[in-house]
Amino acid sequence: MEKIPLTLSEKIFSKASGKTVKAGDFVTANIDCAMTHDITGPLAVKGFYEIMDGKDQKRVWDPKKIVILFDHQVPADSLNAAQNHILMRKFASEQGILNYDVFEGVCHQVMPEKGHVRPGDLIVGTDSHTCAYGAFGAFSTGLGSTDMAAVLATGKLWFRVPETLRFHVDGKLPKHVCSKDLILHLIGDVGVEGARYQAAEFAGPTVHNMQMPERMTMSNMAIEMGGKAGLIEPDSVTEKYLQERIAGFKLDPYWKSDIDADFSDVRDYDISNLEPQVACPHNVDNVKPVTEVAGTKVDQIFVGSCTNGRFEDVEMMMNAIGNNPIAKNVRLIVVPASRTEYMKVLRAGYVEKLMELGAIVESPCCGPCMGGSFGRLGDGETGLSTSNRNFKGRQGSPNSFVYLCSPETAGASAVTGEITDPREI
Amino acid sequence: MEKIPLTLSEKIFSKASGKTVKAGDFVTANIDCAMTHDITGPLAVKGFYEIMDGKDQKRVWDPKKIVILFDHQVPADSLNAAQNHILMRKFASEQGILNYDVFEGVCHQVMPEKGHVRPGDLIVGTDSHTCAYGAFGAFSTGLGSTDMAAVLATGKLWFRVPETLRFHVDGKLPKHVCSKDLILHLIGDVGVEGARYQAAEFAGPTVHNMQMPERMTMSNMAIEMGGKAGLIEPDSVTEKYLQERIAGFKLDPYWKSDIDADFSDVRDYDISNLEPQVACPHNVDNVKPVTEVAGTKVDQIFVGSCTNGRFEDVEMMMNAIGNNPIAKNVRLIVVPASRTEYMKVLRAGYVEKLMELGAIVESPCCGPCMGGSFGRLGDGETGLSTSNRNFKGRQGSPNSFVYLCSPETAGASAVTGEITDPREI
Repeated sequence: MEKIPLTLSEKIFSKASGKTVKAGDFVTANIDCAMTHDITGPLAVKGFYEIMDGKDQKRVWDPKKIVILFDHQVPADSLNAAQNHILMRKFASEQGILNYDVFEGVCHQVMPEKGHVRPGDLIVGTDSHTCAYGAFGAFSTGLGSTDMAAVLATGKLWFRVPETLRFHVDGKLPKHVCSKDLILHLIGDVGVEGARYQAAEFAGPTVHNMQMPERMTMSNMAIEMGGKAGLIEPDSVTEKYLQERIAGFKLDPYWKSDIDADFSDVRDYDISNLEPQVACPHNVDNVKPVTEVAGTKVDQIFVGSCTNGRFEDVEMMMNAIGNNPIAKNVRLIVVPASRTEYMKVLRAGYVEKLMELGAIVESPCCGPCMGGSFGRLGDGETGLSTSNRNFKGRQGSPNSFVYLCSPETAGASAVTGEITDPREI
Repeated sequence: MEKIPLTLSEKIFSKASGKTVKAGDFVTANIDCAMTHDITGPLAVKGFYEIMDGKDQKRVWDPKKIVILFDHQVPADSLNAAQNHILMRKFASEQGILNYDVFEGVCHQVMPEKGHVRPGDLIVGTDSHTCAYGAFGAFSTGLGSTDMAAVLATGKLWFRVPETLRFHVDGKLPKHVCSKDLILHLIGDVGVEGARYQAAEFAGPTVHNMQMPERMTMSNMAIEMGGKAGLIEPDSVTEKYLQERIAGFKLDPYWKSDIDADFSDVRDYDISNLEPQVACPHNVDNVKPVTEVAGTKVDQIFVGSCTNGRFEDVEMMMNAIGNNPIAKNVRLIVVPASRTEYMKVLRAGYVEKLMELGAIVESPCCGPCMGGSFGRLGDGETGLSTSNRNFKGRQGSPNSFVYLCSPETAGASAVTGEITDPREI
């Protein structure tokens, strides 16, 4: 290959398509891993069998490169969900595909946790927040079920190689301000279309000072600025995380953007004075400093989801709660994102403390994030949520209101029953 | 009052109606406590306001004698549920009624646990398993929502005083056989209409050797033989339980059936050789010894509900599981019946062990018992459940199959993935 400067995104698509490609090129790329779940999986499977119609061998391209799990409607919350689960179990079993079933938790937590994500990989998933694995230097992106049908059959998919929009972030995050506040701030700054069909790249000292859970929160929300991916160059932190999960893993320093690569834009931020941020109804880019919405009464607080459902998130919330009781009439719902995270939360004594406080702690699943099987908001109710979307009706009634925030803001607000600046509790 | 021999049921209706009454009499009775929940409550409230239409004061008869809680659809599993919760919260708040909201667990566990049940009380609830409080020597029974509307308005309800069908049980329960097996055996023996509109009375040494959790399982299922109530004469065990929950409680020895009272029938049982029992699809009285159905493959096992969701039930299940793993492809769902029971389960280390084993542990609620917000069965699936009903489609698809059993049988079956005799593991 000719030695030309490339972005991380271009490097990954070059590897995946077997030739050096640049932003704007159209490629047919080999998929390293495909993930599908209980809601979007059945349509993908149906599409797969339509493609295979008439063929003798109705086999997926490579069962070892496909991962199935159920997280949106678990355990089955409707007859329809139960039927979908049965269909997906049968498909996984017949094709020899790994199926975590209802047992492990939210896809975007389980995928890296179980070693299915590596720097330089091209990963697709039938879920919009598949961009989360960008935190590990993988180009991962969400697909529709019919595109996934083609992937299941062929292991390939066409892409237009995206431009890269780099966010260069410097400064030490102030006390009680975390990566969720930062990503909300960036989304608020560029808007929900600010990175449309681009590889957002989160770079700079602030980002590389973060541990993996914080980075995963950042990459997870790249889609909320329209990003096709949300890349963070892998470093020693990434390597350590993956070495604990993938036997013999060694980081290839190749997987980063070349210094002289072409970026569509590089946006510089100094976040030394960033306040806690809140995304207000009904759009993720309707972001305000917490001080502007403090005092807004809340009926329900959800801490969980692929965005902020890790042990560290629950810990941040617990620290904000401190020794205070939870406000009466606030329903605090905590759902760790995976079984592994749940065990850490439990062993730290947080499940016990939360249940004592009157919170509701559920087994790992997507929970109320997308108005799922529990925790729906009624007319006029206000929810505060550590998840990733606050579209009108997202968590229940179209006449309800969802504010997005960090786990610390969620914890502080649980104590008071209204949106509360975590620096003030 | 004339001194004539009375059953416990007749004594309670005599107190409640202010005159000595016998089975067959029609009475207008004063209600000591009325319970309503999230599913049946809204219609009762609507009915109440219809009764109050045009009146200046739209007040319930006595807010201190009414208890509201949410347990069937919690946290709200649909927009409809969320709206029902809002309606019930508003009603409770306006009328000054105690509302446990989504926070405490299943009504029939919470009611005695929080001291709302006393021997000799007449208690009504808008739930068929309200008969559970008979374990404490209260006459408690389920009502429709429109009857409850009248109770909310007046505190009174008419009854035909029921005959009493006494089950006199003697013998020591064999190892691995518990009160659930006994009540299933009795239901299988008399059939689902065997105690229709009668006060079933569970008596004899076997019953009085039981602790309260076991007795509550018995009384809970009286409705499954058609019983209007499921009475157990209060004794020192009852007194101890209530003294721990009601300040200054003292048992009045009056609350038992007189020896020479008129029973419609007294059925004698010696259960020294009773086998573990299983109620097979699709009726609760289709009861067989576990040995006859052992080997039936199960997809999901539910341990919980007002019938068997207490700490002691989870403990029985855990003892049956022992140090074994849970069978692959079995979804074991455990839902302690109340926050108090959950805390005991958690502090005994069972939540941790269950999560390690790959089980799904949820916050207190009715759970999959009635095909609720999670754990629905799909076409052709088989569920094993410690709950109280196995009607066609009760836990999901009309083409699924529900078997009812004891917590020990559930635990043994979780290990093997098929219905298993707990004496053999």
